[in-house]
Amino acid sequence: MLKVPEHQVAGHIASDGKLGPLVDDQGRFFKPLQGDSRGEHEAKFYESFTSNKKVPDHIHRYFPVYHGTQLVEASDGSGKLPHLVLDDVVSGYANPSVMDVKIGSRTWYPDVSEEYFKKCIKKDRQTTTVSLGFRVSGFKIFDHQESSFWRAEKKLVLGYNADGARLALRKFVSSNSPADSNLTPNCAFASEVYGGCNGILAQLLELKDWFETQTLYHFNSCSILMIYENESILMKGGDDAPAPRAQVKLVDFAHVLDGNGVIDHNFLGGLCSFIKFIKDILQSVEKHDETDTSLLENGR
Amino acid sequence: MLKVPEHQVAGHIASDGKLGPLVDDQGRFFKPLQGDSRGEHEAKFYESFTSNKKVPDHIHRYFPVYHGTQLVEASDGSGKLPHLVLDDVVSGYANPSVMDVKIGSRTWYPDVSEEYFKKCIKKDRQTTTVSLGFRVSGFKIFDHQESSFWRAEKKLVLGYNADGARLALRKFVSSNSPADSNLTPNCAFASEVYGGCNGILAQLLELKDWFETQTLYHFNSCSILMIYENESILMKGGDDAPAPRAQVKLVDFAHVLDGNGVIDHNFLGGLCSFIKFIKDILQSVEKHDETDTSLLENGR
Repeated sequence: MLKVPEHQVAGHIASDGKLGPLVDDQGRFFKPLQGDSRGEHEAKFYESFTSNKKVPDHIHRYFPVYHGTQLVEASDGSGKLPHLVLDDVVSGYANPSVMDVKIGSRTWYPDVSEEYFKKCIKKDRQTTTVSLGFRVSGFKIFDHQESSFWRAEKKLVLGYNADGARLALRKFVSSNSPADSNLTPNCAFASEVYGGCNGILAQLLELKDWFETQTLYHFNSCSILMIYENESILMKGGDDAPAPRAQVKLVDFAHVLDGNGVIDHNFLGGLCSFIKFIKDILQSVEKHDETDTSLLENGR
Repeated sequence: MLKVPEHQVAGHIASDGKLGPLVDDQGRFFKPLQGDSRGEHEAKFYESFTSNKKVPDHIHRYFPVYHGTQLVEASDGSGKLPHLVLDDVVSGYANPSVMDVKIGSRTWYPDVSEEYFKKCIKKDRQTTTVSLGFRVSGFKIFDHQESSFWRAEKKLVLGYNADGARLALRKFVSSNSPADSNLTPNCAFASEVYGGCNGILAQLLELKDWFETQTLYHFNSCSILMIYENESILMKGGDDAPAPRAQVKLVDFAHVLDGNGVIDHNFLGGLCSFIKFIKDILQSVEKHDETDTSLLENGR
């Protein structure tokens, strides 16, 4: 039995009889092929990417595993439609916090129609896409005090300026109530989620290395998903406390093009900007820790 | 006595009574302050940059040394006008080959007027700015066979696609007659100009390192100048043969903005793409050398 995914934070949502992705209870994610050939384009990308021996194994793991396409009952009741079958990237988590960040300083690309170009560049200029090289598309945080999910309002998210984006990235790894906008995010999970040798930053840097030389694909309008489980951090010290399993995944490949021997400078530039934001948060947390320690050392 | 610079390859040229830069015989370059406040903006950038202690010394050397502004007789005969006074970056060369490459996948930036935005994005889409993250703006090569300079036609240069840009970057470091478009550029100078520990690539990588973290300035619409002397390479082996002195300089700062805590992802992305082009040329030359050697080793 397929159902609407609980942890989706951006894109088409399959609720109220609309067409959107579905999940099963076996950890599979079913994404309906989008109209006007975009769906087929995405399927073709997955076919190409999955079998591409030039893509190193350690890069493959940043992409959802692809299991072909399948006809399944669409979420909008329109009958059977072809769907991409992918691993559900959040299926192993009990209460995942998830953020979707669209990377790049433009979402259009050479040779698109004027109509599509105009639509994209308008939104790119209205959001932080042009100014920061990325935009937060949506996020949700598991609020352990309330034992429920807090979801950022889409309208607010798309209205972020640089400070708004910075605050969202701090909030995403904070343990104080996300619903209270008067509280300064405490970044309690920053070191364990963004930092460390398996953290988000380390994964982003690995991706950056690849993007500096790969000329296979141009990932237009793709997103980086960041996923982690914050309960596991609070349980730290307990014998069976799981790791936060901070994870980066690339998603949404309906606009991927052949690289034709040129690196994806649009994605790479945005990725580097995003990395700097994450580094800045880690640095501010480390500074804060140092101050705390020196206060203790001075007996204050 | 000021005169029209001999080695300028892009921008406003002071000939036929037009307003443009001038040079003296003491190695100084006089750039008239451009109208509509752009000139003053550039002067302010130089003031800020020159005294900015946060910019490391090894980065300062990629910028022309600034000596303030001065009223001098303008090249268009309109009387005395304020000029930026800079070190003439080619003054130490007898016959420099020079290329001007505008870096970035856009030349416009947030908060420009609609008119300026439209003008820029039109040209950005027509040239390789959008597709490659940089565009060749002009170049000249000293043709040692003819003992004269060969200058690429501006119209052709601005019409380059990816292959055209790649060919220009190969031609720029080749010794076979640049005027003959049927000849495949031999890349005779590639290893010494692009490669080596003091070559263009090493300098670009040093700049890249800085751009990955610097949030002081956004270098909108700036160019990288590449300069070298190819005669010195041909004289190699002679006791007094000078080095090719391959040099990278950043120029044109009329559109530089404060970074406001964000890296210049537009410049960085384009720079990385440009670096990949240079690396590809070096790699193709090395491969070629290996093939030559193995042919020799096999006695063929």
